Amino acid sequence: MVTIQDVAKHANVGVGTVSRVLSGKGYVKDETRKKIQASIETLNYTPNERARNLFFRKSGIVAVIVPEMAHPFFAQFVSASESVLCEMGYQTMICNTYYEQNYERRYLEMLKQQRVDGIIFGAHTALDVTLYADVDMPIVAMDRDLGEHIPCVSSDHESGGLMAAAEMIRSGCRHVVQLMGVRGEDKVATPSSERHRIFKDVLSGAGIRCSPFYIKWHLSDYSYYQKVADEIFEAYPDVDGIFATDLTVMAVHQWAGARKKRIPEELKLVSYDGTNGVRLIRPRVTIIAQPIERLAREAVKLVVDLIDGKPLKNKKIKLPVSLIPGETTL
Amino acid sequence: MVTIQDVAKHANVGVGTVSRVLSGKGYVKDETRKKIQASIETLNYTPNERARNLFFRKSGIVAVIVPEMAHPFFAQFVSASESVLCEMGYQTMICNTYYEQNYERRYLEMLKQQRVDGIIFGAHTALDVTLYADVDMPIVAMDRDLGEHIPCVSSDHESGGLMAAAEMIRSGCRHVVQLMGVRGEDKVATPSSERHRIFKDVLSGAGIRCSPFYIKWHLSDYSYYQKVADEIFEAYPDVDGIFATDLTVMAVHQWAGARKKRIPEELKLVSYDGTNGVRLIRPRVTIIAQPIERLAREAVKLVVDLIDGKPLKNKKIKLPVSLIPGETTL
Repeated sequence: MVTIQDVAKHANVGVGTVSRVLSGKGYVKDETRKKIQASIETLNYTPNERARNLFFRKSGIVAVIVPEMAHPFFAQFVSASESVLCEMGYQTMICNTYYEQNYERRYLEMLKQQRVDGIIFGAHTALDVTLYADVDMPIVAMDRDLGEHIPCVSSDHESGGLMAAAEMIRSGCRHVVQLMGVRGEDKVATPSSERHRIFKDVLSGAGIRCSPFYIKWHLSDYSYYQKVADEIFEAYPDVDGIFATDLTVMAVHQWAGARKKRIPEELKLVSYDGTNGVRLIRPRVTIIAQPIERLAREAVKLVVDLIDGKPLKNKKIKLPVSLIPGETTL
Repeated sequence: MVTIQDVAKHANVGVGTVSRVLSGKGYVKDETRKKIQASIETLNYTPNERARNLFFRKSGIVAVIVPEMAHPFFAQFVSASESVLCEMGYQTMICNTYYEQNYERRYLEMLKQQRVDGIIFGAHTALDVTLYADVDMPIVAMDRDLGEHIPCVSSDHESGGLMAAAEMIRSGCRHVVQLMGVRGEDKVATPSSERHRIFKDVLSGAGIRCSPFYIKWHLSDYSYYQKVADEIFEAYPDVDGIFATDLTVMAVHQWAGARKKRIPEELKLVSYDGTNGVRLIRPRVTIIAQPIERLAREAVKLVVDLIDGKPLKNKKIKLPVSLIPGETTL
């Protein structure tokens, strides 16, 4: 097996210099760095992660905390995060919080015990957000505002809300129901609240009625969404447009099919997220797609930069969403 | 904070005895065990996992290895595994193999370095199965046969195949396409091959044509399944029944909708797995549901028993599947 010593010898530099190149920490002249990289390639050297981690007193583990990993958005986000973390030499630990305070506290305890090198935090939280600011460890938030000191990656929800509103107006809706997370459930601001604000403002400005409907976000159980669909139509029998995330839209679609309510003639649908399942139903759903893999990649890059002690150029990263026109807003 | 010393003092026993009860290792008289458990409850003692793990030289981590975690079956399996592992005091590490040999090798290396206490293995593998038998660590297979020494949890796929075949016969199919994993892709036997064997045998026995169609299992990308749907109907224009897993069934359902092929009049569908998404489409799909949460719970129990050095009563656990009648086989 090729060792770090072999690389140092081949490049004619010290082992410490190779270490600095591998870790990205400390200054190394560009010329020397190139020489070392050439040696790494020539010798086909793969750093022994375990050894490197012991050397740098790292666990080599990043935790990804989400509300529920079986929810399709978080399943795709966590899966993509694992792939990118693996590329960058890290293992991935997962934590489902299910909005449970005791789960969150427990995960925080674990984190304080320094079992992981960094955290990607994508859960809602019932705990005081300052608890997170106090964790002395690299944290990156995904779609959560954990205070100005904690970097955050999110989609451009403002544009998302605007695109959705434009679809509703263009397709002639008169009364739209807007699905949102339960009020007061969350103690932490989420950038996605922007999409709800702008969606409502634009529709109201156009004289279209917009009724809020509160649900528990980010659960995965299909039967919950079937119940939600029943409740929406019971509360608002005259609704002709629904803006929600994928599983709710799928349940509403099923509800409408069972009652011969025609889509899009009598009911328009715009779905937010664009996970795999919602793209496989018929009629094809109009989707505002979040760039889930890019969210994961940017979050991982930020947390690894923090672990490596690199300065961050940009603490708040906002990625574009995209409109995928479908047959549910014709 | 209540410590293990407080428990020992309260129960009037030594710290070592409390340790043995907590770890489940070593002999403790029933009477003493009950006394200690009463003290634990009275004092409301929560063992400090980190301390306990250091004491027993454990990492407190179990790895769950799957082909791709964004696939809905594995998303639900991994999510449920994490919840049960968390209840039992373990953290969950995840590994997507994507059928890549180099990923698998890398994970095996990690495991050999003893970074985790145990493994739940639910991936397909392109590596020789003896490599797994050689890993000197608790391993439990989920739906994979890694040799007689490695415990395995799986669904009763034989009954699943039988139920699916019965639905096809009852609903009057004449030519059924049966979706299966690519031949030769896998070097490890999977109990689920039983469902394919029995499905084919029963249909053939009833004089119904049964055509195999090979796809890459356990990917999550919707566009792959749309392509598969195209290919099925191109290869077999006269097909009137399809037996496949959830995402393929959803894509076929979408394909049929776009071409005004009526379900169930012209095309019957039976879906295997029963993840959340497929339950939210219309017409309601006839499903053979795997008990995903129970699979996770049994796999976790087995791996924790192995970690604790307990003898296993049963090395091969087979859990019942259930038929959820839908409108796609009327």
